[in-house]
Amino acid sequence: MTDLLVQNCHVLVVDHGESPHILEHHDIYIEGPHITRIAPHDPHTQAAQTVRARQMLAIPGLINTHAHAPMVIFRGLAEDVSIERWFNEYMWPLESNLTEEDVYWGMLLALVEMIESGVTTVADHYFFMDRAAQAVSEAGTRAALGWAVFGNQGYEALARTAGFVERWQGAAQGRITTWMAPHAPYTCDDDFLRAVAKAAQELGTGIHIHAAEVMSQTTASLEARGKTPIQVLADTGILDVPTLIAHGCGILPEDIPILQQAPHVGVAHAPKTYLKLGMGLTPIRPLRQAGIPVGLATDGAVSNNTLDLLESLRLMAMLQKHEARDPEVMPMSQALQIAFRDSAAVLGLEGSLGKLAPGFLADIVLLDLGGAHHQPLHHLMASLVYNARASDVHTVIVNGQLLLSEQRLLTLDKRRIINEVRQSMARLAQRMPEKRIQVYNP
Amino acid sequence: MTDLLVQNCHVLVVDHGESPHILEHHDIYIEGPHITRIAPHDPHTQAAQTVRARQMLAIPGLINTHAHAPMVIFRGLAEDVSIERWFNEYMWPLESNLTEEDVYWGMLLALVEMIESGVTTVADHYFFMDRAAQAVSEAGTRAALGWAVFGNQGYEALARTAGFVERWQGAAQGRITTWMAPHAPYTCDDDFLRAVAKAAQELGTGIHIHAAEVMSQTTASLEARGKTPIQVLADTGILDVPTLIAHGCGILPEDIPILQQAPHVGVAHAPKTYLKLGMGLTPIRPLRQAGIPVGLATDGAVSNNTLDLLESLRLMAMLQKHEARDPEVMPMSQALQIAFRDSAAVLGLEGSLGKLAPGFLADIVLLDLGGAHHQPLHHLMASLVYNARASDVHTVIVNGQLLLSEQRLLTLDKRRIINEVRQSMARLAQRMPEKRIQVYNP
Repeated sequence: MTDLLVQNCHVLVVDHGESPHILEHHDIYIEGPHITRIAPHDPHTQAAQTVRARQMLAIPGLINTHAHAPMVIFRGLAEDVSIERWFNEYMWPLESNLTEEDVYWGMLLALVEMIESGVTTVADHYFFMDRAAQAVSEAGTRAALGWAVFGNQGYEALARTAGFVERWQGAAQGRITTWMAPHAPYTCDDDFLRAVAKAAQELGTGIHIHAAEVMSQTTASLEARGKTPIQVLADTGILDVPTLIAHGCGILPEDIPILQQAPHVGVAHAPKTYLKLGMGLTPIRPLRQAGIPVGLATDGAVSNNTLDLLESLRLMAMLQKHEARDPEVMPMSQALQIAFRDSAAVLGLEGSLGKLAPGFLADIVLLDLGGAHHQPLHHLMASLVYNARASDVHTVIVNGQLLLSEQRLLTLDKRRIINEVRQSMARLAQRMPEKRIQVYNP
Repeated sequence: MTDLLVQNCHVLVVDHGESPHILEHHDIYIEGPHITRIAPHDPHTQAAQTVRARQMLAIPGLINTHAHAPMVIFRGLAEDVSIERWFNEYMWPLESNLTEEDVYWGMLLALVEMIESGVTTVADHYFFMDRAAQAVSEAGTRAALGWAVFGNQGYEALARTAGFVERWQGAAQGRITTWMAPHAPYTCDDDFLRAVAKAAQELGTGIHIHAAEVMSQTTASLEARGKTPIQVLADTGILDVPTLIAHGCGILPEDIPILQQAPHVGVAHAPKTYLKLGMGLTPIRPLRQAGIPVGLATDGAVSNNTLDLLESLRLMAMLQKHEARDPEVMPMSQALQIAFRDSAAVLGLEGSLGKLAPGFLADIVLLDLGGAHHQPLHHLMASLVYNARASDVHTVIVNGQLLLSEQRLLTLDKRRIINEVRQSMARLAQRMPEKRIQVYNP
């Protein structure tokens, strides 16, 4: 008997090289952490556990390819300010308040929000990551975690982040993977980046890093180092290991061939953050044309405000049309390929995530498209891209385990988590500009 | 004893000339259709009906300044296509299927979606508007309705739309107001526009019209008529009566002084539609600098996909930052002024709508900001602009009457409405390009 059966849903299939399509009235069979079969609905099938999913749309669990999830604890504390002020007057002073406990409870709160909005995997880049990993382990989700490090913290700090990689690689039944996470070329000098690349090689892992976040960083890098941030990544050996680059709104045309030559590189695109901070946009089209996968992301909640990846999906598609002044640019088929297949590829997990098919991991989200804002449902896929709301998420399964059932969290105590975070609000909101963890001066 | 008491909420106050602020733990007293008093919470106050609103945020009911609400029945039927194809291959052929009954049920469905998402007033521009007015009357919301007319329908059709203005002006306890609604300068010749202006003068009403929707229309108008669409409105007398202009993404700098001289003109801004159709953006900043109010809008659901005005609010603010590459542009205080005070002004209702204050109409929305995506709530106003979701809407009051209570609709039968619309789907989706109600060739 199959372990878990998702019964009588519409299954979104996003395949390589063909348009996404929908299998109507199908059952999804799950054994252990894997999908074993997808077949037309059979009312007689028995299973140890059954999820009735009539009229619901099953999609692969959403993959957030770049976030600082525990930053939710600072949500709302840096609004409508320039990127320089955002870092120097707000974020980096605020982060001097951060404790290990804050990261634990902040990560739990972010996981509540992510599960409730259908995000099953997050590539997270933050501090005190043992505690973040503990939260992921408890929540039952999937994560690719990296402990952020600045060059001026020195090689001991770097060694500590390497220790994190070792401790947690493959933990929580394989749900947790780990990366090295140097902050950015503008906060790590070339020697430090070389040391990170060496550590990653030795550990057999990849590197998650911010680079060319905005065009002004590229300009500054050209002036200071005579190279673009992407060239810096290449020359320091970062790109010799699997690399996840956050943002890349400052990637130049001459950077593309460099990225193309790297053995495995992906770029995380967080459109809401870019709008809010006026950063411009990742050059998605040239990257994709060069075969470099682009994934969807939210970035942290102090710039993106929420961790709602359905909003990021919609914004990405609509902004590409807007910039091109052409509504036929980035049709929904392409947006869905980025959201699922390519976001998995950015994490190097395209063989196991981002697709509902036998052999893939059972990370599944059921959306209830019965709400008035979807009716009448002439076009299911358009509704997913242009209409769907986080509140449409009804059921979430990760690694074959139910985490959300009828919008009820099964692994986390939401009320307690919110209360714990609320008690730290006054302490977390204190801000002394002279007491900051880093200076933004790219 | 007061009729209705909204007890112990946080009240958003958006005032002229000062930043929006929040009155914490206040009671709102309502008598008949009006707010009579807002005062610090007093647990001993008695009322005929009480809404417990602890921890909730009270905002003025949202005002959608331009929609084609019944078009929800065609939702999803014209995706990722150019504006020319959108009109000629999709929308106008589809609308040849339209019956009076479709407009009635479509309007009801749209009203379900609007009430559930906190929209209490809509300026609607569509066909068979007696039936739309009937739906508004039943739903209990507020609307400014206009029966759309094309020049090639002739003067008899124009007279019919004038008849609608007379029949419904001030109906449903004053909740319904009416406008003349010629479609656009590119579908109405100058003589026809002159006749509309004359009719509006005689009826003592205003005109709701599409104009300069996109820059290519302005270019085409300059070529065909030697004037911009805005100049056409001025020269035909349209601007001599109160005018609501939809979109204006093709407004030129030289149009601004013309609009400034008009006795009352406002512009509706529907950012999601502009992104999806690659239309560019309304020049909000120059319009506001010239004292011309800009209001928030969704347009119809075949371009905007939903009628979610909280999404439009967020998109408007973020797109202004994006275009300027400056996150300090359009801070939340300004976005909220547009959403409330200015959207009311666009409808000529700034004395009675868009503000929670004694003497104003009791159109009130309560948002529950207790969801994980708002926590911890460091910044209530930022959460309203950047985090809020339609699903946070908890209670809706219009004209002093409860329409939504604890997310339950009190005036409309949602299940029946959805079922009625669903039964027409196949008929509505039929499309024969040669059978269309109009041709787009501006």
